[in-house]
Amino acid sequence: MRFETLLIVGGGLIGSSIARAARAKDQCKTIYIADTSEAACKSITELGIADGVADGHADHFAAQADLVILCTPSARLATTAMNLMPSLKAGAVLTDVGSVKGHLVQALAGRLRKDIHFVPGHPIAGTENSGPEAGFAELFEKRWCVLTPPKGTNETAVADLIAFWKGLGSLVEVMDPSRHDMVMATTSHLPHLIAYTLVGTAIDMETVTNKEVVKFSAGGFRDFTRIAASDPVMWRDVFLTNKTATLEMVDRFIEDLTALKRAIRWDDGDMLLDNFAKTRDIRRRILDADKD
Amino acid sequence: MRFETLLIVGGGLIGSSIARAARAKDQCKTIYIADTSEAACKSITELGIADGVADGHADHFAAQADLVILCTPSARLATTAMNLMPSLKAGAVLTDVGSVKGHLVQALAGRLRKDIHFVPGHPIAGTENSGPEAGFAELFEKRWCVLTPPKGTNETAVADLIAFWKGLGSLVEVMDPSRHDMVMATTSHLPHLIAYTLVGTAIDMETVTNKEVVKFSAGGFRDFTRIAASDPVMWRDVFLTNKTATLEMVDRFIEDLTALKRAIRWDDGDMLLDNFAKTRDIRRRILDADKD
Ligand SMILES: NC(=O)c1ccc[n+]([C@@H]2O[C@H](COP(=O)([O-])OP(=O)(O)OC[C@H]3O[C@@H](n4cnc5c(N)ncnc54)[C@H](OP(=O)(O)O)[C@@H]3O)[C@@H](O)[C@H]2O)c1
Ligand SMILES: NC(=O)c1ccc[n+]([C@@H]2O[C@H](COP(=O)([O-])OP(=O)(O)OC[C@H]3O[C@@H](n4cnc5c(N)ncnc54)[C@H](OP(=O)(O)O)[C@@H]3O)[C@@H](O)[C@H]2O)c1
Repeated sequence: MRFETLLIVGGGLIGSSIARAARAKDQCKTIYIADTSEAACKSITELGIADGVADGHADHFAAQADLVILCTPSARLATTAMNLMPSLKAGAVLTDVGSVKGHLVQALAGRLRKDIHFVPGHPIAGTENSGPEAGFAELFEKRWCVLTPPKGTNETAVADLIAFWKGLGSLVEVMDPSRHDMVMATTSHLPHLIAYTLVGTAIDMETVTNKEVVKFSAGGFRDFTRIAASDPVMWRDVFLTNKTATLEMVDRFIEDLTALKRAIRWDDGDMLLDNFAKTRDIRRRILDADKD
Repeated sequence: MRFETLLIVGGGLIGSSIARAARAKDQCKTIYIADTSEAACKSITELGIADGVADGHADHFAAQADLVILCTPSARLATTAMNLMPSLKAGAVLTDVGSVKGHLVQALAGRLRKDIHFVPGHPIAGTENSGPEAGFAELFEKRWCVLTPPKGTNETAVADLIAFWKGLGSLVEVMDPSRHDMVMATTSHLPHLIAYTLVGTAIDMETVTNKEVVKFSAGGFRDFTRIAASDPVMWRDVFLTNKTATLEMVDRFIEDLTALKRAIRWDDGDMLLDNFAKTRDIRRRILDADKD
């Protein structure tokens, strides 16, 4: 056991899942959760997934914690970190689960206590649901968790956090924050933006009713609606904080779509075929990776 | 039983699924399948899903069939219909399963025998796999099947075909061909084009490797790869035959995406939030519809 006492700040989908997994996999002795939402605190208490719940100030828990995981909405991660800073125990590891890393690392650069080890993180796992009830212990099982420690971070702290995530069932990768943000813009942020757009475009069609859209959604549309049902606030923040990478991906996507559109207009079947054939291989590789 | 003898032309995913379902649900006495692919015929024979299999010419089967369902790739539907025309039994119902309807109706307009009842159809059901082995009897269960009979079509023929599809477990809706093509452009064709584009854009990123794309696909990308693994030939044909509706949808989509892109660039969080919030309702309605 690398960390005896764990403090989770923000006990929603991700935070409560970490609490459940840490307990189930015996990754710490004591689990505290702090959440500013009264309803969330009530629910966390009822679920019995923490040894102590703080509604609002968490300084007394922070002073005891060997590992603090920030699981608040991403827009509040930096402020939450700075507010807790004075209370943290010397030598504690501070991490987070935010979906964008460069922005947070920049916001905290040079503002952290020297005796605290900050190792930013991002578990690539989630659902379209929010809140403590939505969490479950298996969420991180065989999912990647990316850590983006700044240069010079204490190696033991990084190793301990890697061991913790592996203990929850995750696979762990260490990456540069800006690389993380570019990879995620490709595999997560652009897909979400596209899904939101597509569902919106369909809703706005004057000649096709929403009833028809619902009725005939099995033709492909349905898969997009699950992604487009994700938390709007979280995704607004993701796009605004990972702006550069997102905009680059959107531009490339529009270019590629425009090229396919042109091929359709000019009956260039070969061009369409070439493009549609090359995407199958990735699916096969993803399914193969599942088997490993 | 409305139809004693059934001929399925093209025994791939859709055709073989119809054969399986018609047998399982006792919707006809005799099932013949014709397929130009030798491998498919061999597989159909081995699977034992037909009472007779024709490799190539199906005129002898066509002469006996009360219902003929064309399940070939969509680009060949019109030619296949015209080739079979002389052999068909007087009074037979001729239908198809093609994903685009306006194009086929136009291609056959005025060319059909007067004693044949042509009722175009499209089951909104499928998977990303092809071939006889990929089929299964439950494919149409609780899925919509749209029929687009031209004005003046014999009403008994339409009623019989509706009863047949309902017998396979489908829900049936009758629609105008051009309305069908617009609804499908929205709920199926645009989603497929977008999925192909998105997966292609990700593959082409120089700064993100395909290995990384596969590894971190759980963040949203994964769902797109299933759709983008659909049959390239079939989808090329869908876009080229449903060109007008597809191009209109692509233009609307690009407009909407460009507006969101602009909101990201100018930090217009409210605009993003409004757009992301409105898409959740459709998901809820789709899940509600599942329960019915
Ligand atoms: N959901 C995913 O798929 C996913 C995946 C990977 C990473 N993440 C990241 O995980 C983080 C949390 O996401 P989530 O889906 O778990 O959200 P969630 O279910 O909405 O939970 C967040 C919880 O934190 C509370 N909170 C807000 N501000 C706080 C503060 N200053 N101190 C303590 N608690 C606070 C919220 O209360 P209120 O409701 O009152 O605000 C809420 O109960 C985000 O940074 C997100 O980027 C999410
Ligand atoms: N897949 C879906 O999700 C889906 C959903 C709804 C509707 N549809 C429609 O269903 C139709 C069939 O799709 P599918 O997915 O079942 O395709 P499939 O699995 O590829 O099967 C088509 C079969 O028809 C054969 N064939 C080609 N030309 C023929 C001809 N002239 N006479 C007899 N057989 C012929 C093909 O042989 P070869 O391999 O030698 O060409 C193949 O065995 C298409 O029109 C499509 O638009 C598909």
